Amino acid sequence: MIKVGIMNVTGYAGAELARLLYNHPEARVTSVTGRSEAGKRLAEVFPHLACYDLVVEPELGSVDFVFSALPHAASAEACAPLVRSGVPVVDISADFRLNDAAEYAEWYGGEHPAPDLLPSAAYGLTELNREAVKTTRLVANPGCYPESALLALAPAAKAGIIWPEIIVDSKSGVSGAGRGLALNTHLGEAGESVSAYGLGGHRHLPEIVQEVRKMMGPVEAPQPVPVKVTFTPHLIPITRGILSTCYAPLFPGRLLAGEGARDALRELYREFYKDEPFVRVVDSPPATKHTRGNNMCLVYPTVDVRTERLVVVSVLDNLVKGAAGQAIQNMNAMTGLPETLGLDMPAVYP
Amino acid sequence: MIKVGIMNVTGYAGAELARLLYNHPEARVTSVTGRSEAGKRLAEVFPHLACYDLVVEPELGSVDFVFSALPHAASAEACAPLVRSGVPVVDISADFRLNDAAEYAEWYGGEHPAPDLLPSAAYGLTELNREAVKTTRLVANPGCYPESALLALAPAAKAGIIWPEIIVDSKSGVSGAGRGLALNTHLGEAGESVSAYGLGGHRHLPEIVQEVRKMMGPVEAPQPVPVKVTFTPHLIPITRGILSTCYAPLFPGRLLAGEGARDALRELYREFYKDEPFVRVVDSPPATKHTRGNNMCLVYPTVDVRTERLVVVSVLDNLVKGAAGQAIQNMNAMTGLPETLGLDMPAVYP
Amino acid sequence: MIKVGIMNVTGYAGAELARLLYNHPEARVTSVTGRSEAGKRLAEVFPHLACYDLVVEPELGSVDFVFSALPHAASAEACAPLVRSGVPVVDISADFRLNDAAEYAEWYGGEHPAPDLLPSAAYGLTELNREAVKTTRLVANPGCYPESALLALAPAAKAGIIWPEIIVDSKSGVSGAGRGLALNTHLGEAGESVSAYGLGGHRHLPEIVQEVRKMMGPVEAPQPVPVKVTFTPHLIPITRGILSTCYAPLFPGRLLAGEGARDALRELYREFYKDEPFVRVVDSPPATKHTRGNNMCLVYPTVDVRTERLVVVSVLDNLVKGAAGQAIQNMNAMTGLPETLGLDMPAVYP
Amino acid sequence: MIKVGIMNVTGYAGAELARLLYNHPEARVTSVTGRSEAGKRLAEVFPHLACYDLVVEPELGSVDFVFSALPHAASAEACAPLVRSGVPVVDISADFRLNDAAEYAEWYGGEHPAPDLLPSAAYGLTELNREAVKTTRLVANPGCYPESALLALAPAAKAGIIWPEIIVDSKSGVSGAGRGLALNTHLGEAGESVSAYGLGGHRHLPEIVQEVRKMMGPVEAPQPVPVKVTFTPHLIPITRGILSTCYAPLFPGRLLAGEGARDALRELYREFYKDEPFVRVVDSPPATKHTRGNNMCLVYPTVDVRTERLVVVSVLDNLVKGAAGQAIQNMNAMTGLPETLGLDMPAVYP
Repeated sequence: MIKVGIMNVTGYAGAELARLLYNHPEARVTSVTGRSEAGKRLAEVFPHLACYDLVVEPELGSVDFVFSALPHAASAEACAPLVRSGVPVVDISADFRLNDAAEYAEWYGGEHPAPDLLPSAAYGLTELNREAVKTTRLVANPGCYPESALLALAPAAKAGIIWPEIIVDSKSGVSGAGRGLALNTHLGEAGESVSAYGLGGHRHLPEIVQEVRKMMGPVEAPQPVPVKVTFTPHLIPITRGILSTCYAPLFPGRLLAGEGARDALRELYREFYKDEPFVRVVDSPPATKHTRGNNMCLVYPTVDVRTERLVVVSVLDNLVKGAAGQAIQNMNAMTGLPETLGLDMPAVYP
Repeated sequence: MIKVGIMNVTGYAGAELARLLYNHPEARVTSVTGRSEAGKRLAEVFPHLACYDLVVEPELGSVDFVFSALPHAASAEACAPLVRSGVPVVDISADFRLNDAAEYAEWYGGEHPAPDLLPSAAYGLTELNREAVKTTRLVANPGCYPESALLALAPAAKAGIIWPEIIVDSKSGVSGAGRGLALNTHLGEAGESVSAYGLGGHRHLPEIVQEVRKMMGPVEAPQPVPVKVTFTPHLIPITRGILSTCYAPLFPGRLLAGEGARDALRELYREFYKDEPFVRVVDSPPATKHTRGNNMCLVYPTVDVRTERLVVVSVLDNLVKGAAGQAIQNMNAMTGLPETLGLDMPAVYP
Repeated sequence: MIKVGIMNVTGYAGAELARLLYNHPEARVTSVTGRSEAGKRLAEVFPHLACYDLVVEPELGSVDFVFSALPHAASAEACAPLVRSGVPVVDISADFRLNDAAEYAEWYGGEHPAPDLLPSAAYGLTELNREAVKTTRLVANPGCYPESALLALAPAAKAGIIWPEIIVDSKSGVSGAGRGLALNTHLGEAGESVSAYGLGGHRHLPEIVQEVRKMMGPVEAPQPVPVKVTFTPHLIPITRGILSTCYAPLFPGRLLAGEGARDALRELYREFYKDEPFVRVVDSPPATKHTRGNNMCLVYPTVDVRTERLVVVSVLDNLVKGAAGQAIQNMNAMTGLPETLGLDMPAVYP
Repeated sequence: MIKVGIMNVTGYAGAELARLLYNHPEARVTSVTGRSEAGKRLAEVFPHLACYDLVVEPELGSVDFVFSALPHAASAEACAPLVRSGVPVVDISADFRLNDAAEYAEWYGGEHPAPDLLPSAAYGLTELNREAVKTTRLVANPGCYPESALLALAPAAKAGIIWPEIIVDSKSGVSGAGRGLALNTHLGEAGESVSAYGLGGHRHLPEIVQEVRKMMGPVEAPQPVPVKVTFTPHLIPITRGILSTCYAPLFPGRLLAGEGARDALRELYREFYKDEPFVRVVDSPPATKHTRGNNMCLVYPTVDVRTERLVVVSVLDNLVKGAAGQAIQNMNAMTGLPETLGLDMPAVYP
């Protein structure tokens, strides 16, 4: 039985880790931290976690495995000594996602707290980076938006069938913005409304670009073509769920033309994900509700034959596949357990 | 491993049974029916149940245990031969809830299809009727509203501390009305709105009255006092969840007076439910979201000391504790399994 | 043209006053205040008020009529000098609602800032207190919950057909809690959920009791019977709207018995409100959405003939009939204008 | 006073016409039709329209102006004789939007019922086609999605600063799908969820393409470049509102490069719409709630400087600016009234 610690259990990602791990057969949460609520019983902070007999502590106790749900910067500072002392860590913050410390500084506004650990950190999109995840002590859990965009684009990007002019239009529930208070998540403001944000450049953009570049490799046609990604997140009045609609021109001549393109594309996607337990290629446009509360990502790839564009819709629960579930999947991979352990359950639908 | 059949898996209660049973360690769903969708794969009807490799059939195959999620009348007709042939059944419909066939005819508008089975049917509010549930082959699963009202009232009613003038004001999400199409569950109509219904007499009323009468026994003060219950259901724009606010005058002199009354009442409730895994007496008013997707009922009892009235608020998920979860709890009790098997999980919050 | 000032335009009630007054043919908003946003253009604070060319000021300019949407205590302090100098004021805060300064101190936690003005303040439920409203310079606009409860109860209470054992169970959208930030109005928490609050005694309770007492007069049967009101507010995931369900035993022998009671009751209600433009007695249970954005209160009275109880359901928009609309109706009455001026519009449905 | 008739008042667009026209100073609704509800009082069908003393009739009475909110095909059949007899008509259905009867047949699946009227029909996006609207008897009111997309794209398209590779990603509330019953607008399914639909080609696509082509004129660079539009609608759990996010590559060299591009673009948009009362170019991303219930379209244009793409976000209320409000604006223009008459009101926010 793995003794697990959760740093910052008092945010949504931390609480979701506790929720999911409660039914994990090989792991047990034994220590949880959270500065603002330290000293309270976990059941006081979160009535749905009354099944736990734990007190929120200021510092982690001795554990075998650590999840960090701390904010960026604070997370790297807390994770670094653990990793250096040999404790395996999944960091849900953004701190180890970007390979380049300079890019981190540009987007997150400060020196990286532990740049020496960047080379050994694995980007924890298990489906696309499994071997690196299995052989590291430090996994950078993907952002929720990148998770949805990358799973939608990977089969096409790796197959070289798209031109690297990509648009990712994402719609997210409010839990992605966290439990902190802000006017844009006040029900009176956000309810019965939809809005776009981050149009000047959202922090998840460089992460998407970095990973798409890796998937596509150099594109030469015949000169080098840069990868261009526009990413627009939107806030919709639901608690959980992200739907990303991804667009890219088809690379001329690489996918069957005409109406057959759709079937050929779906077949390519099915083949790509055929052994993945948490990605399902579906035959009709999915709804976020089909993944509510579980670790699935549903992907619907199609072709707009009028314009010869790839269009892929993906859905997932931003707190599960977009955060805590993916983190547990990574823990399973890192510790040699079956990846599905504790995560194999239907969505809570309707 | 118990082979389980679900009749009418294509409604919300039926689908919820399939969702919950997927992780039950001692039961496996092996046969599901549903007239309108017969012949389709379950995954086609419900993408969240793609984990099942089952086809919706017109008739049940051979199974060890049956849940019926059929509409009333049809349910009794389908359950009766099964029960007579010795198959244990939990009926989620209303058919075996009312002990009196005449009352059934009055409220449900037709002769009872199997009145001979009524005497052996147990009212499946496990917490209050455990012994009868354990020793029968036919359990009538409670209605979702009665479940929330009866768990809120039982400790006070059984202790004789209230006068039998009861008001139950309930607020329910739309899944309680089922998956059928109607204007009052159209998001354009029900969204951003709240309304009352059933004011002339909702079908769950006689069920509440019947069980409250049993709990209170004869009230003589000194002449016999009849049990009077007014029940008003309301539709609110959420998918899952019932909150019931229950009111009754305190029986003079039976509970500590003044501010101390609140603590005395809470102590009485805690004692009553101290061994129940699925009812928790809480210290502050609960939200339905605290029970989303799991089998808990949270009960908050208090006293309006200005008016000397009992006020109890209860919350539960109408599809779980109010339907499928309670049904599985009953199956566990009927088959000698621990009641919590397959049902011990935190709510999906937020 | 009346020059109108709004104190604290930056809350929901203040902004709603500005919204509604924009189309008032005899009034024009010429000055608005709001401490935290002073100096900003109104359009910056509220994009929907871009039709106004006004700057939020720290202090009111010279106006003919003032609405105060300030918090309690601050409101009385700001209104008192205006009233004393002869400016007519409608105060939307609670400061002048309770007739008794001691009761105010008990519920609002502080000395009343202007007790000398209490005797001349009129309780601004125009329908029930029209003459007083027309002849004062200071109107205390009712609370949103009391507005819904009192309009539901008035015809029965004044006719003496109920016993003064009243329960008011109210369901409100989140805008009633204001625009301030709090966890209980965070969409991630309040969305897809319902909860009760204020069970120990909500501040709107004494206001309801005070006015019900006036409506009922002394009840002697044959000894004096005290008025007992239990009031439970609930938070539901909508932005606007209150539905109140009110219960009281019928006074024996005063209303026709049996099924005929319902028609007799409805007739009594229709007669009571027959000349009121903003209260409509309806034949079937109303939804809050039927009053979204306008100044109507819909009232559905019925009798639970099984228990001989009055049950009345009322709906209104808490920001209009429950605040800004009622305030403008009061302004119209105070200034000799037709009460419906600027307020006669259909609800925004769906 | 114009006597107005509404055909099919019983759908959402028809009811919204009645709501908005109630406060129009120069028009009065005197006749309304609706097959399924014929014979009922309008107040029975829609409680929020109780202000009208009208009966739903099977056929229109004699009126001066007609709005048709009938379904396509039925609408053209009903409008044709009216137009031919000289009655001015605004048709909210799709029947006269596409200039080419063959294209109509392809997308709407049937012969056009009145192809002879197509040449005289004006596409009723008043802002872009004012002169034609003013001089015709038959206006085809735009679809709600095209309305939002075209107002977002027009300034850029007409200025020739974009390359005709356009993506329109739209998010709509459920009222756009009408009042008919379907599983995808059931609150239990659509609530707390988001999904894409119409990926194979939505009927609003040819309308967008047709009008974008007109706005851009022939693009030669130096060979002719076809206009390519991908349009993806999404269903989100709100009642009213559309947000469209539109993407197109900037035409090289035609807009200032670098960070200055954003200001230059906003200036271009402001200039384009400077005299339009119902389109406002805003400085920060708007929310649909800012236009709830009124006739405004808010447009936020920006440049993704990393990829040199235009990104424009527009919001409107699909039942007002996307249907009934735009229709009344057209009526005003057709009858020589000021366009804002009856439509100048703030949004109902929050």
